[in-house]
Amino acid sequence: MKIILVMAQTLDGKIAKTSSHFPDWTSREDKKFFQRVSKEAGVVIMGDKTFATFPSPLKERLNVVFTMQENPKEIQGVKWVKGEPEDVLKELEEMGYESAILGGGAFINGMFLEHKLVDEIMVTIEPKIFGDGLALFKGDFDVNLKLKEIEKINDDSVVLKYEVLK
Amino acid sequence: MKIILVMAQTLDGKIAKTSSHFPDWTSREDKKFFQRVSKEAGVVIMGDKTFATFPSPLKERLNVVFTMQENPKEIQGVKWVKGEPEDVLKELEEMGYESAILGGGAFINGMFLEHKLVDEIMVTIEPKIFGDGLALFKGDFDVNLKLKEIEKINDDSVVLKYEVLK
Repeated sequence: MKIILVMAQTLDGKIAKTSSHFPDWTSREDKKFFQRVSKEAGVVIMGDKTFATFPSPLKERLNVVFTMQENPKEIQGVKWVKGEPEDVLKELEEMGYESAILGGGAFINGMFLEHKLVDEIMVTIEPKIFGDGLALFKGDFDVNLKLKEIEKINDDSVVLKYEVLK
Repeated sequence: MKIILVMAQTLDGKIAKTSSHFPDWTSREDKKFFQRVSKEAGVVIMGDKTFATFPSPLKERLNVVFTMQENPKEIQGVKWVKGEPEDVLKELEEMGYESAILGGGAFINGMFLEHKLVDEIMVTIEPKIFGDGLALFKGDFDVNLKLKEIEKINDDSVVLKYEVLK
């Protein structure tokens, strides 16, 4: 199945100042962009710290949330998962999904990239600088990309779309 | 005087893997872009770790290098400096320069941003991912930018140009 990483970051590559930093600094147009592409896929995969920054689960999409908790509380629209990402993707394929959005944070993104499971990356560059903070990927990589499209979504925000070369 | 930060980074906001990492991964078009804008200004300001990654001083430009060394070795084309960035800029103005390029690394960039001395930022986004590494700025910021221009310099590399809102 096709995995598309969709994230917003500052110009200096930060997705948040800390792991509990709610993404209230992203543009309305970025939020709409995320809504559109994630509703098309129907699934958003994320870590539990990212999930905890949301006021509620993402609507009209399956929230697939990686967690280390033993007995996470059942929540409608949420599928708690653990273990190897390949096994999780196999299960999603069996459920009929053809693509999924990968939505952070840095650790989960890094895990999927490490396992060579990320096919496309769409990053919104917001007109901000945070300096120290969390980056798109935790881990050590040297991955090459192919630029597919540049989309200006408002006066100051740009979405860069890439294919991941494997 | 006008300070323009000009740097290349990976999509995930990394300017290098480590402070001794030579920027051999940037595109030829980015190197040409840097040459053009830095020769226009005539001055490149940088830290001594960034300077140490170059095989030789940048030609036809004054290399203004911040260092903590007590008696740095005299090198043609290099002006060793220390102390407050405002004092260094005043000296450059007295020498007749009207603008200067700020060229890294993260610590020097952060110091100039902290002192509200950066007027414009031109970042080349190269089609790569490094994961862990050095980012554009060391320090804690919440700075807003205004997007001025998007310039595609080759099939996969994009220069984003911003004004820093102060």
